[in-house]
Amino acid sequence: MELVWMIPAAGLAAVLYAGWLARDVLRRDMGTAAMQDVAGMIFEGAMAFLRRQYGTIALLAVVTAVVIGVIVGAVSEGVKAIDFTNGEITYGDVTVDQWQEGLLTGLAFLFGAACSALAGYIGMYISVRSNSRTASAATRSLKEAITVALRGGAVSGFLVVALSLIGVSTIFLVYTEALSNDKAIGPFLIVGFGFGASFVALFAQLGGGIYTKAADVGADLVGKVEAGIPEDDPRNAAVVADLVGDNVGDCAGRGADLFESMSAENIGAMILGVAIYSVTGDLEWVIFPLVLRSFGIFATIIGLTSVPIFAKDDGKQDPMTPLNYGYYIVSILSVIGLAITTRVMLGDEWYWFFFCGLIGIATSIAFVYITQYYTSGGWRPVKEIADASRTGPATNIITGTAVGMETTAATAIAIALALVASFALGSEADIPGAGSFTTGVYGTAVATMGMLMSAAYILSMDTFGPITDNAGGITEMSGAPESARHITDSLDSVGNTTKALTKGYAVASAGLAAFLLFSAFLDKVKERLDIPLNEELPIDLANVDVFAGGLLGVMLVFVFSSLAIRAVSSAAQDIIEEVRRQFREDPGIMAGTSRPDYGRAVDITARAALRNMIAPGILAVGTPIAVGLVFRFTRSEELILGDQVIDDPSGWLAVAGLVMVGTIGGVMLATFFNNVGGAWDNAKKYIEAGNLKDPSGAVEGKGTEPHKAAVVGDTVGDPFKDTAGPSLHVLIKLLSTITLVMAPLFIP
Amino acid sequence: MELVWMIPAAGLAAVLYAGWLARDVLRRDMGTAAMQDVAGMIFEGAMAFLRRQYGTIALLAVVTAVVIGVIVGAVSEGVKAIDFTNGEITYGDVTVDQWQEGLLTGLAFLFGAACSALAGYIGMYISVRSNSRTASAATRSLKEAITVALRGGAVSGFLVVALSLIGVSTIFLVYTEALSNDKAIGPFLIVGFGFGASFVALFAQLGGGIYTKAADVGADLVGKVEAGIPEDDPRNAAVVADLVGDNVGDCAGRGADLFESMSAENIGAMILGVAIYSVTGDLEWVIFPLVLRSFGIFATIIGLTSVPIFAKDDGKQDPMTPLNYGYYIVSILSVIGLAITTRVMLGDEWYWFFFCGLIGIATSIAFVYITQYYTSGGWRPVKEIADASRTGPATNIITGTAVGMETTAATAIAIALALVASFALGSEADIPGAGSFTTGVYGTAVATMGMLMSAAYILSMDTFGPITDNAGGITEMSGAPESARHITDSLDSVGNTTKALTKGYAVASAGLAAFLLFSAFLDKVKERLDIPLNEELPIDLANVDVFAGGLLGVMLVFVFSSLAIRAVSSAAQDIIEEVRRQFREDPGIMAGTSRPDYGRAVDITARAALRNMIAPGILAVGTPIAVGLVFRFTRSEELILGDQVIDDPSGWLAVAGLVMVGTIGGVMLATFFNNVGGAWDNAKKYIEAGNLKDPSGAVEGKGTEPHKAAVVGDTVGDPFKDTAGPSLHVLIKLLSTITLVMAPLFIP
Repeated sequence: MELVWMIPAAGLAAVLYAGWLARDVLRRDMGTAAMQDVAGMIFEGAMAFLRRQYGTIALLAVVTAVVIGVIVGAVSEGVKAIDFTNGEITYGDVTVDQWQEGLLTGLAFLFGAACSALAGYIGMYISVRSNSRTASAATRSLKEAITVALRGGAVSGFLVVALSLIGVSTIFLVYTEALSNDKAIGPFLIVGFGFGASFVALFAQLGGGIYTKAADVGADLVGKVEAGIPEDDPRNAAVVADLVGDNVGDCAGRGADLFESMSAENIGAMILGVAIYSVTGDLEWVIFPLVLRSFGIFATIIGLTSVPIFAKDDGKQDPMTPLNYGYYIVSILSVIGLAITTRVMLGDEWYWFFFCGLIGIATSIAFVYITQYYTSGGWRPVKEIADASRTGPATNIITGTAVGMETTAATAIAIALALVASFALGSEADIPGAGSFTTGVYGTAVATMGMLMSAAYILSMDTFGPITDNAGGITEMSGAPESARHITDSLDSVGNTTKALTKGYAVASAGLAAFLLFSAFLDKVKERLDIPLNEELPIDLANVDVFAGGLLGVMLVFVFSSLAIRAVSSAAQDIIEEVRRQFREDPGIMAGTSRPDYGRAVDITARAALRNMIAPGILAVGTPIAVGLVFRFTRSEELILGDQVIDDPSGWLAVAGLVMVGTIGGVMLATFFNNVGGAWDNAKKYIEAGNLKDPSGAVEGKGTEPHKAAVVGDTVGDPFKDTAGPSLHVLIKLLSTITLVMAPLFIP
Repeated sequence: MELVWMIPAAGLAAVLYAGWLARDVLRRDMGTAAMQDVAGMIFEGAMAFLRRQYGTIALLAVVTAVVIGVIVGAVSEGVKAIDFTNGEITYGDVTVDQWQEGLLTGLAFLFGAACSALAGYIGMYISVRSNSRTASAATRSLKEAITVALRGGAVSGFLVVALSLIGVSTIFLVYTEALSNDKAIGPFLIVGFGFGASFVALFAQLGGGIYTKAADVGADLVGKVEAGIPEDDPRNAAVVADLVGDNVGDCAGRGADLFESMSAENIGAMILGVAIYSVTGDLEWVIFPLVLRSFGIFATIIGLTSVPIFAKDDGKQDPMTPLNYGYYIVSILSVIGLAITTRVMLGDEWYWFFFCGLIGIATSIAFVYITQYYTSGGWRPVKEIADASRTGPATNIITGTAVGMETTAATAIAIALALVASFALGSEADIPGAGSFTTGVYGTAVATMGMLMSAAYILSMDTFGPITDNAGGITEMSGAPESARHITDSLDSVGNTTKALTKGYAVASAGLAAFLLFSAFLDKVKERLDIPLNEELPIDLANVDVFAGGLLGVMLVFVFSSLAIRAVSSAAQDIIEEVRRQFREDPGIMAGTSRPDYGRAVDITARAALRNMIAPGILAVGTPIAVGLVFRFTRSEELILGDQVIDDPSGWLAVAGLVMVGTIGGVMLATFFNNVGGAWDNAKKYIEAGNLKDPSGAVEGKGTEPHKAAVVGDTVGDPFKDTAGPSLHVLIKLLSTITLVMAPLFIP
């Protein structure tokens, strides 16, 4: 295993690089006293929310870890050794007994949850320290502002990727080497890590998503609509909460989302590697995903460092251009890393898997373009929505919905193509004993890992979004010069694009990942039912349990979205009441003579967001478990598989249907939410920029009827794109990880 | 086969009853000259549209029939005899050769299309003759008005059901008895009938749905919004088109939808019956669905005839009450008919199937209540949306979306429960040689047929909707007395409920039907691959082709909805232009001195609707075929089934995934569209009725800001609930029938 040293090297490099970036950002100029004042309030608000949120999550996580440990301990049969000596796979004795498995799974869950929380916390800390520094840099030059914002964002991006890599590697090493367990069963022991990451991600994304949009919608409704004051006006008590929201949703929420993607997909890929390891005896197949990600980290370090080289201060360059160049460098280096890793680790037929990885990298690039086409102002979709605004809010909504639904086409075709192509290429690899199904699924895993090689770069660009958004707000509230505002505006618009792009990336990786995580789930079921890992266990859609489970899976996706959207309305009400109260009780606020109590508004938003995340959270965690148990205990069929009769399969069959069909529904619905929200947002911006003209050629800009109609669309899109959509990504992956861990519960 | 005489008896009874109803309606008083004038314009417009629409459909159908015939003739291998002598099922020689199969399939397609069109045409003819008679009756009494409207609607309902029953029975008889073919292969020969019905239904529902909402949205935008004149104002040139639209969407469209449901599900159930026939030798299993439907027709005749008995003219009775009583009578008689049919026809273990049928009847009743809860003004969901309107159109849309998504829960759980329970009960039946899977699937077929026993009654109530809606418009435009308007208003509100209810019924039956049609598709594949019908052929969700097909299936559902919604906007533009032109060129119209050219507006709407139905129509028909062919010819895997190796299964596996997962996605999305649209509509009505109050207790009714916000929601909901939702029902079933007919194309 020649390349294993890459894993600690990359982990160390990522941490050191993040540290260097953080130091670089923190020693920069913090801006004027007014800027520091606003930034200070945002920092305090964000950290207070994070502490409160992680406090709640920690409590839930500890309880859940104990429950998981007890359940797995009670219902599992322990982990069996996997023998492969005779070219045939057989299961040996139980090597890790059931209570030991329960303990290890519970601890892995806590460790995964802790790593995710740590990455979110440190990332946020730097992110909310970067905003005033970006605002200050914007008073000097675009180039400097980009550099600060991107480096601030990169701290978060790198920590997320590094902690996922270090976390998975460490727990794998401890659970195998330190506890003297066979490495072949290692991946099965650490599935709890993925579930822990999903668990934190669900609540972080839900809580953050509800917070950010409740504050946004609440501030707009009570400020712009009721009181008639502009956006980001310091007299609005909710304005700081709004700026805090940008961070907790886009930085902490999305970071946890991708932390989960990487961790769960990494573990899933390792489980699939076990199936090949069990016939070849080469552990490389299991370790490969970790090594590939290590190359991705080095590629990203080089790509990110090169961005300032491409940035020009001529006032003409689109700030997206240097970011794109950096991304190309990451992609090219990823291809090289992929070639080395597959060549060295994946045997004689490595090139098939190299092609699979290429598909993953290409898919990542494809989504960058698809998202831009559908959500940025230069193209047909956004223009169409802007035009429809001329006949009022109803046609704006109708056209937006049509456009949003249309966007599912490109997403579905790209994911389907990537899956089928990587499966087909993988299944060409001739590995004696493994069979084309096993190598095909491994091919999809390589594609997924290839796609995730650039995760740190994508996440850095994503966190760039809230930093520049905040910088804009700080510039506005601190009365900085017009030129600085101009720079932060152009950065903010790029930030909107990068945020949309990250969502497309997250959806695509969730779609690809579902397939490999599902195969990992089936491997778990096979292990339990003593079916060799290289045999197929069909999840038959014509089976009534699978079909009913699928129906309930898509239902879950819709009802979860309903609750997430409703949570925003409900939390926004609390904020509106509070701002109204402050206006009423202190007339000096409106007059500009006294300062509103920002802290109280921040605090109320935080409480409301956390209270409202409970219902969708419970629904997400509870539904797969409830469906599995109900089908297991109310149904009594048999499944005939060759000459083997499997009793009472209804529980795990229904859960399998729920996860797979629910994932498909969730990918499509999340795509709709993300893109329609982005398109509505940019249709409004398109009109505000004066691009919409009536038949006589007169500009219909800010304040006109079409603009008002576009504002309605933008407001509707807010909870779609920033709460429901991103929470769905997490839900999808949670479904996979929860069933992976809870599998023994559904198998008699 | 003791009960077979019931089939012609029921067919004859239905036709005679429809004739009697038609005669009764047509000899009633046609109302004042002014009423007749308006009704005459509606009649002419509706008939002109229908002729034009059916002209287009006929052309498309003939071309499609030829294409189908040639394709089936060229790629099929003919239909094999099914032997079952030794207790084992084996396939014999080809008894119907491939070109004969192609010819029969093409002719069956044309016959199915013709029956559907005929039912739609005659039904519409009577429906648009009933509106002025209802308006006239409303000047006298509520009881008389209900009777006329319900009888007018029942003509359409009965013809649809009767022509489906007669059509399926006739073609089955001709293709087996007359052509001396074995009855066991009969159901396979007539699948073209179901596809023909689906084909007409798709275009009838799409064209009608686009017409009705384009006219509605167009008339509202140009009349109420631009010109500031009330709804149904005679000065608006689009107002007649709007009234025509109610008929072509709800009467002709929904009729074709349910014609298709009944026909396709009937044929699917017969195919499943073949699997049991092939082991028992009792043809009853094949004929059973036809006999059960015959009992449903008699039950409905009695139920409908009894409605006037329950209607009271005391001014206090809710007009929904007598309709509900009639429905209960139909349900009770259906249970009796079900007991007789299962007892006589389904062998010793008949009671298991009796229970399955009961589940179907109960599901039908459940959907009546679920729909009412979510879309009528008395309950929480509609009130919630009305409340949200107080903070503007954006919160109205957000809350409506949340409510609409929530409604998928009840739908999914009810369908899943009905499917699993009827499967479990059916699989308890011990039929030697058949196996629990075969009897289980047959159980779901019995449940579906049980649900459809009340189809004629549901359809009669549905067509009641456009008749009373039209009667209201005629009353308004002809200046009839206030008391008549009051009666038509109360009937109109009932009509809205019955229309919503029919959609719920159609969605539920589509969900149940998908399962049995899918099993029929698999039987077709098995026949082709020489796999015995009583063996399982798993469609494995972990197979990459199935998964990718599923992803593309849900995508199809979203993109189809996008096109359907977009078609409404596009067609509405044409109408708006035309009304504007008429106002501009003849100022006398606005002054009330000259009459607008209603006919021209009707004509333009018709052209626009037909032009805009082409794109979604082609997408619906083309996608499953394209996916099947692409996967068949670009992929080359093997499927290992026991000791049989099946080459190149990718084509039919991908199509199977597309149909099943697409169906699940479609059922959920259609539920969302139908319910959210109904809820928005009724939230507006709730506010108009003065039920919304501000915190001080003052009524916020018509013309207030909350009302304006609710109007936005209502307008957005129009294309959702009347175009996209109903078209999705049809799409779902079309996917099943098209793949059933085209199966040979996807199998190498």
